[in-house]
Order: sequence, then C-alpha cells, then structure tokens
Amino acid sequence: MSRAQSAKPATRLMIAASESDANLFWATRFLAPDPVVFIEHRGKRYLLLNDLEVDRGKKEAEVDKVLSYSEVEKKLTGKNGKKPMMSDVIAQVLKDLGAKELVVPATFPLSFALQLKKRKFKTLPKPDPFYEERVLKTAREKAAIKDALKHTGEAIQAAYRVLREAKIRGDRIYYRGEALTSERLRGTINLHLMAQNCLGKHTIVAGGNQAVDPHCEGYGPLKPHQTIVMDVFPRSMDSQYFADMTRTVVKGKANEKIRRMWHTVKEAQEGGIRRIRAGVDGRDVHQWIQDYFEARGYKTGRVKGRMQGFFHGTGHGLGLDIHEAPRVSKVSEILKAGTVVTVEPGLYYRGIGGVRIEDVVYVKTGGCEVLSHCPKILEIP
Amino acid sequence: MSRAQSAKPATRLMIAASESDANLFWATRFLAPDPVVFIEHRGKRYLLLNDLEVDRGKKEAEVDKVLSYSEVEKKLTGKNGKKPMMSDVIAQVLKDLGAKELVVPATFPLSFALQLKKRKFKTLPKPDPFYEERVLKTAREKAAIKDALKHTGEAIQAAYRVLREAKIRGDRIYYRGEALTSERLRGTINLHLMAQNCLGKHTIVAGGNQAVDPHCEGYGPLKPHQTIVMDVFPRSMDSQYFADMTRTVVKGKANEKIRRMWHTVKEAQEGGIRRIRAGVDGRDVHQWIQDYFEARGYKTGRVKGRMQGFFHGTGHGLGLDIHEAPRVSKVSEILKAGTVVTVEPGLYYRGIGGVRIEDVVYVKTGGCEVLSHCPKILEIP
Repeated sequence: MSRAQSAKPATRLMIAASESDANLFWATRFLAPDPVVFIEHRGKRYLLLNDLEVDRGKKEAEVDKVLSYSEVEKKLTGKNGKKPMMSDVIAQVLKDLGAKELVVPATFPLSFALQLKKRKFKTLPKPDPFYEERVLKTAREKAAIKDALKHTGEAIQAAYRVLREAKIRGDRIYYRGEALTSERLRGTINLHLMAQNCLGKHTIVAGGNQAVDPHCEGYGPLKPHQTIVMDVFPRSMDSQYFADMTRTVVKGKANEKIRRMWHTVKEAQEGGIRRIRAGVDGRDVHQWIQDYFEARGYKTGRVKGRMQGFFHGTGHGLGLDIHEAPRVSKVSEILKAGTVVTVEPGLYYRGIGGVRIEDVVYVKTGGCEVLSHCPKILEIP
Repeated sequence: MSRAQSAKPATRLMIAASESDANLFWATRFLAPDPVVFIEHRGKRYLLLNDLEVDRGKKEAEVDKVLSYSEVEKKLTGKNGKKPMMSDVIAQVLKDLGAKELVVPATFPLSFALQLKKRKFKTLPKPDPFYEERVLKTAREKAAIKDALKHTGEAIQAAYRVLREAKIRGDRIYYRGEALTSERLRGTINLHLMAQNCLGKHTIVAGGNQAVDPHCEGYGPLKPHQTIVMDVFPRSMDSQYFADMTRTVVKGKANEKIRRMWHTVKEAQEGGIRRIRAGVDGRDVHQWIQDYFEARGYKTGRVKGRMQGFFHGTGHGLGLDIHEAPRVSKVSEILKAGTVVTVEPGLYYRGIGGVRIEDVVYVKTGGCEVLSHCPKILEIP
C-alpha cells in the first residue's frame, strides 16, 4: 500500500475538523474546530479556509499555501449568478491544480464523495494508516507526549495525596468529612489536569470488582483494602498530544492475594519494557507477558461468563490519537525506532479485583526510553 | 424531505462514536467513545455492540434491541473459516432484518458505503437534519440545557469575582500579584466548569480589539477600562448537552463610547428576546436587531479590510450540538414551539472593542422562557 502510493504520487484530499481528525492536524499543524479542506498535490500542501480562519491559517498552518474559500466562491458566483456549493468550490480548486484522482481517508464523508463524482473526480478511500509516517515521532512530538505525561503523573500523585489524607472508617474511606467516591477522586485528577490545560476524558478510577471490566470508569464509594485502578489518558490542549498512564493502589492494607498479583503485574510490566527495542515483534513482548502470568498461575479465560486474567493487549501506539499504530498484542507487528507505545499489562479476577500498571516508552535501537514517571505504590496507609 | 421519509419509511444506518455524533446519541441515549453500528428499520431501533459494550448497552441504550457483534461474527466465521470484515457483519444483520436501501447521514464514512455497495446495499446520504425531530426539545432535554447553563452562569460569576478582587496598576490588571491574562481568567472559568463535570472548550476571554474578531479566544494581559468579552459554551459530560452564554464587562471605568455601545447591545438583546415566540420568522428578529443598531448609528460593513458592526447571526439552535437548527439569522426560518435558541447580538469596532451579550431561550406559544441566568454588569470597579 505505502509503496504503491509513493511510486505514483496521488492527490490527497481531506475534509474534516482537525481538532477531531489527527491526520489533518498532523499534516497541517492547524487546529480548527470546524471542517476545513486539505489538498496535497505533487508534494505541495494546501488548506482552503473561510474568512474567519484564513488570517490565522496563514500565520499558523504548516502548509505550502493557504487558499481563501471566499475568493474561489466569488469567482464562481460571478459566472452564474448564484452561490456555488462547497463541492463546486473544492472542484474548482482541484481543477486549477490539475488533480483528478483523489486519495481520501476511509472516513471521508460519503456526501462529498458523491458530489465530487458528479463533478468527474474519483475518490479512493485509503485504509488506515492514511500517513504511514505518523507512527515515527519527531523530537517535537516526543517532547509533547512527555510533557502531557508529566502532568498526568502529577495528577495521579494528587490522587495519592487525597488517599493519604483520607481516613478509613469501617468499609468506607472518608476525605474531609465525606465518603470518598470514584467520582470525587476522578474530579481531583481531572481538575489537576485542566489546570495544566490537559483534558481528561473517561478517566478511570475503579475500585475492587468494578475494575474487572477494564472499560468501567468507576462509580460510587471507594472501599479500603481493595485495589483502585487509576487509568488517566488526557489530551494536552496546547499540543493536542495524548498521555496514557495507569497506577493501581490500595488505601489501607493489601491482602496476600492482592499483594502477589500487584507484584506480578509490576514485574511483568518491567520485563515487557526491558524487551522493547527497535526490531522486536510486539507479539513476542505480549507473549512473554502472557507466559510470565501463566507460569505464576494466573490463568486467562472465561469464568462464569466473564473474561478474567489478562485479556487485553499489552500496549498501543500513542500520539495525536489515544490509540494508534503500532500495537503490542497477539498480532505480529515489528516495533520501529521512533515509535511511541504504552506497556500496560493487567490481571483481573472477581473477588480479588483489578491490577494494571502502565507507562509509555519511546522505542530506540537496542532498547527504549520510559517517557512517563510516577511512583508505583501498592499501599497508601 | 421529511414528508418523503415518513411516506415511505426507509432503513436508517449510522456508524459513528455517539460521543462525537449527536444524531447517534439522540437516537440511542448510549454514550460510546468508539464507533458503534445503529440501524432503524420498520420503526425499530437496533444497536450492534462489541463484547466490551454489549452489557452496558443492554442497560443504558434506549433502543428496541441490542445485538452482539461477536455473535454475528461467530456465525459468519463458522461458514468460511476466516474472520469476517465489519461490513460483512453489518450486511448480515441488515439481511436478517430484510433491509436493502439505507438512508445514512451526509458524513457517513465512504469506505463503509463502498463495502456495503459490494454487498448489494444502496446507501443514500440524507442532508442535515438527519432527524428533523431533534429540533424539538423534550422536558428532559430542556432541563439538561438549563442545568448546563446554570453552571455556565456560575463560572462567569467566578470570573467576575476574580476581576473584582483584582487591582488596576497602570495599564495592567493584577490578580494575587500577577498580571491577569486572558489565559488565566479562562482557566478560572474552565476549572469552575470542570468541577461541575462540564467541559469548556474554546472559551473566549477577549479584551479590547481582540474581540473584534468574534472567533478570537483571547490571549495575553487584559487591560483595564476596556471591554472583556467572555463567551462560554461548555458541554455537560453528564447529559452531553451544551450551554452557551456571553457577558461583556469592563474592569475599571467604561468610557462614553463603550457605555453607549454596551447599553445598545443589551437593549437589542432584550428586544430580540421579547420578539421570540412560536411562529415568528427568525429573520424578522434578526432584522429588527440590525435596524435597531442602524437607527442608533452603528453601521455594519468592511472598514480597512475588516468587518465591523454587527456581522454575525443573532442566534442558533443549541442541544447535543453547539450549533444546530434553527438559525436566527438573515435566512428565513420559522421558530417552532419547543426549540431552543441563543440570542446573541454584538457590536465590534476597532478602537472601541467588542460587546456581545448572549442568553438562551426556549420558544413557546406567545413568547419564550429565558433558560440562562447571570447578572449583566458593565463595570467591575
């Protein structure tokens, strides 16, 4: 796919809001909350912007040329007296550039594809990744991810402080007079992030059995002596890059089952990180962790209709999307130098709870650099 | 369009993450951060969910039936030995229901349309609105908007308190020892919102000439005796509904030009609200405000290459999208009972600054109900 593209350089077209479309932001570095038109033709990148955005685009967008939508619109209005459709304006720009066949993302809006077809342009959806180069992070991108991770580690430590100050009474945890809930501790984390202009969405603070469903965000009063999984993956609103970090703690005393499981996950995570380097197959790293768990008696499989054990991938790429290439999972995928991936094994059993520990690494020749920092603590007294 | 649909009820298909697709959330009340498949066929609504979401879907989704993606997948895998594509699974469900022609949103992903075409299904993109009924708000929706507006009004009042406590020194405003910037005051507002689980994005805090560009979010030190436009439009992460409110204040003393302009905008906004009722044409309300400004000498037009005066619409519908039908603008559009719209006239002149005042109303027979509450203050000493 990628070789075919480079052999015969095609015209690329995207119509999307770059705030929610990582490819468009990556290609332009221009943040737009509403849809804009992007064209890449013969190695040159163009943005077509309306009057409210065109001045900012000229200043901020890292493209070869910013075109004014209203100027093209005016030109076409002159010809037939009535205001042209957006697809007429886009077709005019494509015609002026000499483009015919358009490579578009898989998510390209159907209505625009049909309107462009009527105007004799062919749209060819390209399966992900739209830009293969996006997996390789530049120094600027690596620094942006590291910065978002710094705020994330501090937010988790703010949660540690709340847990440390909190008091145990019976089977409840009290913080400043009120029962401490998942919602409240999540609020602590998200507020800390927001103060650093990072947006925490779906932040997980899940206690006990709740965490056995790894997507459960957690709700209600947290209990002492149980695991509390905190999985925090905010997006920096300054850089648009994501962080992703998980820590598991117990307020009070961890019993032997929890203690052994927590240390096993921690060792598996550290072992996984030691195995990550350029050229390694992500599947082998994942398999090593699976074997590590199995050898210690932690079986994976369905028990009473629910998956238990280690039943998700070891990690995923991270950047302008929270989940992007490459994967570290049961599917074979060679990790290249310059990619950024999470390492997040976990074990989940009803009756014991969930334990997941996650850091982010930058893949290099012969090893990797851990980009995330936050103490791993089992018990908070 | 809507009559044609109801005369011959078609099958509707959407594939989207309901968190970012208002139609899908509206049709299901199921919040999903990743794409899910929605089918509406012969008056019944179906959601096709993966194993991680299927239990939650059965509990939360307001649809007739939740289908398990993996069960259909398993059925198809049995037949030919290899895992089917997502479009095979969707095609199977559509076939089982007896659907052939699919009405899809204009934004429907091109790649799925092509894959379904290969499997003999026709996709017909429907221009917005995908659901006409979405403009009419239920009691629950009205309450959700009102609740988000309550937090928004309180967030603006938190900004008022910061401005009140702040001190003027020369041409700067100091708050707790530091120069008060747009960024810092925006932080006050966004943090207040986040504490109420409302997400403020692109919150505008724009002083002086910056606000003459109504999309400028504002940056750098705020100055005394100048207008400060605060336009706050968060989304409640509890209900998914948006609020939208604007206030304009001056820290210090407003000069005569600012004072007269501020009162003119306030009177125009109040006059606009008085004119809103079921059956009125939004264009007439907008025209009345334009005339009101003109009669008081506030001209609209391009001055030195920049639009000045009143050059945006009076208002827009508000709900699961920040901008939705109906518009209150130069385009004719009858306001129906049960719609929710903003009323937000503004005046912008270089050298004076910007003034915009915005509230949200619920349209009723014979009048409207103002859903937003926050004092309108010109000067904060």
